[in-house]
Amino acid sequence: MSSITIIGAGNMARGIGSRAVRGGNTVQIIARDEAKAASLAKSLGTDVTTGAWGSAPTGDIVFLAVLFASAVPVAKEFGEALAGKIVIDITNPFNATGTGLAVPDDTSVAKLVDEATPASTHVVKGFNTLFSQILASGEPADVFFAGDDAQAKASVSTLITSLGLRPRDAGDLSMAHWLEGAGLLEMGLARGGLGIGFSLGVNIAEGN
Amino acid sequence: MSSITIIGAGNMARGIGSRAVRGGNTVQIIARDEAKAASLAKSLGTDVTTGAWGSAPTGDIVFLAVLFASAVPVAKEFGEALAGKIVIDITNPFNATGTGLAVPDDTSVAKLVDEATPASTHVVKGFNTLFSQILASGEPADVFFAGDDAQAKASVSTLITSLGLRPRDAGDLSMAHWLEGAGLLEMGLARGGLGIGFSLGVNIAEGN
Repeated sequence: MSSITIIGAGNMARGIGSRAVRGGNTVQIIARDEAKAASLAKSLGTDVTTGAWGSAPTGDIVFLAVLFASAVPVAKEFGEALAGKIVIDITNPFNATGTGLAVPDDTSVAKLVDEATPASTHVVKGFNTLFSQILASGEPADVFFAGDDAQAKASVSTLITSLGLRPRDAGDLSMAHWLEGAGLLEMGLARGGLGIGFSLGVNIAEGN
Repeated sequence: MSSITIIGAGNMARGIGSRAVRGGNTVQIIARDEAKAASLAKSLGTDVTTGAWGSAPTGDIVFLAVLFASAVPVAKEFGEALAGKIVIDITNPFNATGTGLAVPDDTSVAKLVDEATPASTHVVKGFNTLFSQILASGEPADVFFAGDDAQAKASVSTLITSLGLRPRDAGDLSMAHWLEGAGLLEMGLARGGLGIGFSLGVNIAEGN
């Protein structure tokens, strides 16, 4: 069982939160709009708590479930409150046309969040190739993730399994750039005929 | 039924060639090493032909199944012989450590091949997220592809289906950059615990 805090109260926060409660994890919701946070927490379950914006999250694992442009500013607002935490950046930094990334080629939102948080914070990129509809469906799906700290990734892996999802370790934090690119690939596949009823994943060969 | 030419005689050429023969397609092999081309052709089937290096391929669809660094030089060597053809670039331009791409951030091997071929050539990126072992296994898998010409992509899609694989249209040729990045992602997942008994693909949600 993990203890998580979700910063954000949108569809991704709802999808992750509902699976987390179902998986027996402790869940806290923090949003700038406290009424929205309270409403989401209440709909998720009676044990789900809320916290003040910018205060220390109760969860050991903190989802940054905000729009990509807010990820770094929000990480900075929380600042030392994120010390020692595992922070999962789930954002997709799409440009205005959804055909390219809105971050420089040599970095990623996850890397920028890593640079903006205390040295003791472990940033993991992940969940960005899941449409919120897939999260809401409760169906199994693959979750790609990447990060530099092996212990943090092991904790995230355990959490992912508790969410009814399959953890797929893609490598260190430099891979976050390509995971953000995989978000673009997923958008391309959606436009190419798959719609939103799918997620990027892996096909395991027989006998493996 | 499609008519294809494979430029190359390595493991990817063998995997694509064997599936193509099984799918009832006409297959030609062209390699710089003519003995190697003849050997591969013979092992694939009695109807499989070979062609001289640099000569006009008999296939309407031409696989560029060479190492990534050779893709543009080979395309230039064939030059006008590729006019009117659909050229599928299957290469993965990994850097020496397999952690980044060896092409500039704003392009792709596929785009560079497109620039190096006649205006009437339609370049499609694809098959680069398939390990040759998966191709050899004969099992189903997803094939991501991207290109600018809708008719060319429809032809490639038909061919992919005949190979016992699932066509997944990812968008226009600008997506080739992210497909090449998806090759890196696949390497990261392989190192992260999946080995080579898998391929990148999609999980279709129930009811879709």
